[in-house]
Amino acid sequence: MTQTLTDRLSDYAAVAADLGVDAVALVPGPNFTRALNQSFMSHERPFLLVIPASGAAAALVPNLELRSWDLVGFPGAVFDWRDQDGYDASFAALCAHLNISSLAVEGQVMRVFVHHALKTAQPGLRIVDGEKAISGLRMIKTPQDIAALQAAIDISERALNHVLGNVRLGQSETDIEQALIQALFAEGADDLAFTPIVAAGDNSARPHAHARADYAVKAGDALLFDFGARKHGFAADITRTVFLRHASDEAHEVYGTVLRANLRGHEVARAGVTAHEIDDAVTGVLEASAFADRIRTKTGHGLGRDVHEAPYIMRGNHMTLPAGTVFTNEPGLYDIGNFGVRIEDDVLITETGCTSLTRFPKELTVLPC
Amino acid sequence: MTQTLTDRLSDYAAVAADLGVDAVALVPGPNFTRALNQSFMSHERPFLLVIPASGAAAALVPNLELRSWDLVGFPGAVFDWRDQDGYDASFAALCAHLNISSLAVEGQVMRVFVHHALKTAQPGLRIVDGEKAISGLRMIKTPQDIAALQAAIDISERALNHVLGNVRLGQSETDIEQALIQALFAEGADDLAFTPIVAAGDNSARPHAHARADYAVKAGDALLFDFGARKHGFAADITRTVFLRHASDEAHEVYGTVLRANLRGHEVARAGVTAHEIDDAVTGVLEASAFADRIRTKTGHGLGRDVHEAPYIMRGNHMTLPAGTVFTNEPGLYDIGNFGVRIEDDVLITETGCTSLTRFPKELTVLPC
Repeated sequence: MTQTLTDRLSDYAAVAADLGVDAVALVPGPNFTRALNQSFMSHERPFLLVIPASGAAAALVPNLELRSWDLVGFPGAVFDWRDQDGYDASFAALCAHLNISSLAVEGQVMRVFVHHALKTAQPGLRIVDGEKAISGLRMIKTPQDIAALQAAIDISERALNHVLGNVRLGQSETDIEQALIQALFAEGADDLAFTPIVAAGDNSARPHAHARADYAVKAGDALLFDFGARKHGFAADITRTVFLRHASDEAHEVYGTVLRANLRGHEVARAGVTAHEIDDAVTGVLEASAFADRIRTKTGHGLGRDVHEAPYIMRGNHMTLPAGTVFTNEPGLYDIGNFGVRIEDDVLITETGCTSLTRFPKELTVLPC
Repeated sequence: MTQTLTDRLSDYAAVAADLGVDAVALVPGPNFTRALNQSFMSHERPFLLVIPASGAAAALVPNLELRSWDLVGFPGAVFDWRDQDGYDASFAALCAHLNISSLAVEGQVMRVFVHHALKTAQPGLRIVDGEKAISGLRMIKTPQDIAALQAAIDISERALNHVLGNVRLGQSETDIEQALIQALFAEGADDLAFTPIVAAGDNSARPHAHARADYAVKAGDALLFDFGARKHGFAADITRTVFLRHASDEAHEVYGTVLRANLRGHEVARAGVTAHEIDDAVTGVLEASAFADRIRTKTGHGLGRDVHEAPYIMRGNHMTLPAGTVFTNEPGLYDIGNFGVRIEDDVLITETGCTSLTRFPKELTVLPC
């Protein structure tokens, strides 16, 4: 059953009530897109949707976005502003119209200039970080969300398959990265979920490595791909690590350890488990190995419209995960100066267990290249 | 002459002194990349570089970024934090180490959760929006910056040329958008500068339109491309509007008006002119035409590492533009429900005039398609 705009705005009104604040404010980004079922850009122009706990929503809209805004069918008051006039008067009019004393905002999305504009318009306004509750509405994926995620993942897997068939010794990391990007779009991506990581040799040991134009991949290298397509607003996030021509005994042992940790994550994931328990199980496998000193990251994070969203799969996060949660299961071992291995699947939690939306093979692969 | 890391950090110390605050804080984004000559991601993890007006810089770094951070050669104190421990203690330690009472931040880049973390660590810290002065350091482009911009623009133009040769009636806007994206990467883009706008017919009248999968382009349509490659960290931003098979008399008149406005911008741009004067000259041409009611936007914006950056080319902005400024000259006329025309060049201001880094032809083009 598809939610209407009114239903979706009611969700945020309920969050405001739960948080004990008068209203929730959204700025362009994943929550804004979810609420309005249409995406907008923001850049230097403030753009704000305010949903009170009770009463009608209101919006502050850059004048040049009004025609796109009309397509939303927004039922509330709209305060637009033009570049030549600035936005202070519209913020003041919005605040006067709303007559609220407290407001929850998306701390991970709203930028300080919007916070300042609100405080300038209404110095006494109490602004709290409602990120967790606001973005929490995106945690349980709808069937449409899951279909979009699966589409993004399928595109990503086809692209990786294509690229692995074309890796040759002597190519640079950036050569391979470019081939991957082109393959993602050729397979139907709307956009990149993020700039891919293509890292070989010692670079594979950096969790957020940048591809190097001046490194030629060579026999024996680990070659790590961390990437994803974006499709219908949803992001894939997949990592596979392969070896070129041959893999050392150490590589086999490390890879096997990471794979066991990854598989352990799939075993324990089910509705009702906590994020802590998943990370504890996965990281526990790594800790029990001979490579415990190579652990650098938590197990993973939620995935949806954002590449990194709740729930964060880490010890200390005792949030219970409901069916419909999608998270990344991405254990890794990183030996600085030597090589790293990460295996990352996108996993959907169900009532009885979990389903890996990622189906790309994860047995240790040695490319003949 | 290439600046060293110490030189670049000194630039921000000088900004702090100019603003009368104790320090400047940078978070991952274009200023952070400029300061460190290396790009980092942020997502949900706070990452902060603080440069005092006097004394050594310090940084708050997510633990998993430390290995990439080591490549920076940062001379100051580093406070790292691990996911499992949270970041509050590191913010407290950073603030205690810095011993400052006021801080200028990038209002357009820093998100509210970092602002909150700073205020939690040091409730009395006075935080001001220093965006204009901080990002202002990027306004005068270095020769390397200009070379990167030119590379991004050249890639974009080759891609557009390729795509225009392949437009066929009946294709959807998204078909053409996908072809453009693939061409950008095939021509050497590192990334997209932004999601391209490919808008035909009535959609061309929306300044920030989204490509439609369900609209087949037809004879007589305006077809607007607003897009750019990113290369070596710098973004191109180009718009061309063409017509399919034939262009109406109205289309010719509107196009001619926009082109005259665009050319007027090139005529008046030179070191020492104000942003106001450029917009006034360009918009003045549109206002003097029969289509004044179709004006929706200011003339343009600065361009560099960010697609939208200072200076904003709009009336009321009396900032004098120095040689080395790069801005977009993008007049347009938008008739809602009918069609829009925009012509956008990326222009480098010089001592004696300006140079259009965009060289793609802008005579009215009717594609035979």
